[in-house]
Amino acid sequence: MATIKCLMLNTSLKPSDEESNTSALLQEAARWMETEGVQAVELRIADYDVHPGIEPDMGNGDEWPELMARVKAADILVIGTPIWMGEKSSITTRIMERLNASSGEENEKGQPIYYNKVAGVVVTGNEDGAKHAAQSILYGMHHLGFTVPPNVEAYWVGEAGPGPSYMEAGRDSEFTKKNTKMMAFNLVHFARMLKEHPIPAKGNS
Amino acid sequence: MATIKCLMLNTSLKPSDEESNTSALLQEAARWMETEGVQAVELRIADYDVHPGIEPDMGNGDEWPELMARVKAADILVIGTPIWMGEKSSITTRIMERLNASSGEENEKGQPIYYNKVAGVVVTGNEDGAKHAAQSILYGMHHLGFTVPPNVEAYWVGEAGPGPSYMEAGRDSEFTKKNTKMMAFNLVHFARMLKEHPIPAKGNS
Amino acid sequence: MATIKCLMLNTSLKPSDEESNTSALLQEAARWMETEGVQAVELRIADYDVHPGIEPDMGNGDEWPELMARVKAADILVIGTPIWMGEKSSITTRIMERLNASSGEENEKGQPIYYNKVAGVVVTGNEDGAKHAAQSILYGMHHLGFTVPPNVEAYWVGEAGPGPSYMEAGRDSEFTKKNTKMMAFNLVHFARMLKEHPIPAKGNS
Amino acid sequence: MATIKCLMLNTSLKPSDEESNTSALLQEAARWMETEGVQAVELRIADYDVHPGIEPDMGNGDEWPELMARVKAADILVIGTPIWMGEKSSITTRIMERLNASSGEENEKGQPIYYNKVAGVVVTGNEDGAKHAAQSILYGMHHLGFTVPPNVEAYWVGEAGPGPSYMEAGRDSEFTKKNTKMMAFNLVHFARMLKEHPIPAKGNS
Repeated sequence: MATIKCLMLNTSLKPSDEESNTSALLQEAARWMETEGVQAVELRIADYDVHPGIEPDMGNGDEWPELMARVKAADILVIGTPIWMGEKSSITTRIMERLNASSGEENEKGQPIYYNKVAGVVVTGNEDGAKHAAQSILYGMHHLGFTVPPNVEAYWVGEAGPGPSYMEAGRDSEFTKKNTKMMAFNLVHFARMLKEHPIPAKGNS
Repeated sequence: MATIKCLMLNTSLKPSDEESNTSALLQEAARWMETEGVQAVELRIADYDVHPGIEPDMGNGDEWPELMARVKAADILVIGTPIWMGEKSSITTRIMERLNASSGEENEKGQPIYYNKVAGVVVTGNEDGAKHAAQSILYGMHHLGFTVPPNVEAYWVGEAGPGPSYMEAGRDSEFTKKNTKMMAFNLVHFARMLKEHPIPAKGNS
Repeated sequence: MATIKCLMLNTSLKPSDEESNTSALLQEAARWMETEGVQAVELRIADYDVHPGIEPDMGNGDEWPELMARVKAADILVIGTPIWMGEKSSITTRIMERLNASSGEENEKGQPIYYNKVAGVVVTGNEDGAKHAAQSILYGMHHLGFTVPPNVEAYWVGEAGPGPSYMEAGRDSEFTKKNTKMMAFNLVHFARMLKEHPIPAKGNS
Repeated sequence: MATIKCLMLNTSLKPSDEESNTSALLQEAARWMETEGVQAVELRIADYDVHPGIEPDMGNGDEWPELMARVKAADILVIGTPIWMGEKSSITTRIMERLNASSGEENEKGQPIYYNKVAGVVVTGNEDGAKHAAQSILYGMHHLGFTVPPNVEAYWVGEAGPGPSYMEAGRDSEFTKKNTKMMAFNLVHFARMLKEHPIPAKGNS
């Protein structure tokens, strides 16, 4: 079976020398993928200097091109985000803007370069906002050319108001576990299917 | 002090012979308003036959005109909604469409008829989606001409996944209680202020 | 090649004895599908009495079960919606609530019954709101178990403010034409792929 | 009459040495405010190094504290944003996160420091997404403690698909002009009203 590569972009506002609840949940998905022989690499975007803008390379030390090269090499792209005020993080929005900057590039069939890649989303917050964040991200990915398999969102949020985050709460939600597993397997199923049966160019190139 | 009237539209999918979590939370807000001498009337929209459409009266038994007369008489309008799939209810969307149908009507100053009225929102669900629902509703109300005071959203949602609803969970969230109180007082503060100091017509008529 | 069936649910607020811009655009998609031998049937939901509620059959003349039988028989489901105040129609929201009511039903593999079906969306409005409506609908469909291929949204909106609708504007937007074609072909590609290679049950049943 | 100060935060992805459509529309609002004797200062956030994070000062050269001091001094805050993929800019999201970082600070009455300030929003894009961006921003501002007067959104977007931006399109939309004027006057009306009649602390402190 063809090798499938998964890239996970963690858009926590914190760099990787700090713990991230979103990372904890991304890693649960990564463990399920590993049982299928898929290696998932997680990058913390706050470690990089990703400039605002709508060009593939904004210059002056912009580190997005390095990240974009990894996106291009991946079969599966998972975006992981925390929630602030019921919204995905500013770093997620930045990533979407920069992915969009390459939306005019084409593969050898004349399709957008994101064709045959699949997308998933992971959201953690201490409360409310996961589906809203997932909506925006999955829609954007589909719009760029990614395929969105069923049930590729895994999230955890607590009860309304201040309260423990995912790790503090014990990571033992059966609901979140089930969704994380579904996400991981469906992403791998579809990545394999599209590797073997790429999207025909008719009508979309 | 001028009498302030509050109308609460409960857009639960269930008619009023069934219990509603959204009603339970609306009634908490109503109790705070009562301490300020403001009477709040709650109507269950599922009891009415509100037709789809973009006219003030869609005819053929449309019961919206009766509800719209109550909206016109109110100083405060609170919309209460449950959450389904992370979204406000279809009955809320229906209400917004019908409020919009009267957006061309003007008061004696030539302003939209919703000027000098204030808006609030109550959301309950067993999980995730409250802020997303509140966004849509408060934005729409502001767009129609209502004033949105600070902190006029009260909600309760539980942890991610299936679980108890607001009443089953015991109605004892300190966070929800605090927000419900703030909502009630800020709605009354602003309704009084706008009664005494209506919005000048300059620039908006 | 297996026969592919497409169902289009037009959630215009008007019944089918009135013209619908959303129908005009849905029919453009239908014409592209026809070139691939796929028959698309469009239903105007405002012709039916779809009750609010969260059961598969709400009784008392609820006509959703008849519509749901058509959904179950379809390989492709396209939801078409107008825009009011920047939002999808109340009838779209109603449809999503009722699709959700059957989310617990399973196919012979133990997967949600929407697995192996693909989803697309069509939006028309005289101005602003198409992507917001598409976000909500495509997210919800994915959440229920539908697959969302790349670029399965077709929309037309005019410049900010009052102005002509899709048909009045002449239906000649190159952008909308291109997206409608991509949507139609990608829906058919994926419906065929999933017919031949159904989603394995591992991890999602 | 008391002096009213308006701060406009332009979250264009481009620094101020480049032209900004959002700036062009913000300046139209500023001109209307000037007729009322209100001075509006526009800052281009891309000129500043605003760090990600949830503290009032993230250190290491974070320039947010300087911006936050201006927010604190303002009576009116207008956020102006472009649209990318139907969403507000990543810089807007960053601003909201940082405003939220000071949400625990209180005024002398024990209310959030944003009380008695009013909020408005300006959105420009070549197509679709204005109301969605406005929803998120106005909701967030209300949530933090700002007052949202009626009709405080001014936007311009063109027809679906690629096309001219606000300035190229000639800045002559009657709809946009009317809304910009309403926004400007309603923001000033409410800023004055709240200066003279601050929100009582009862229930919200």
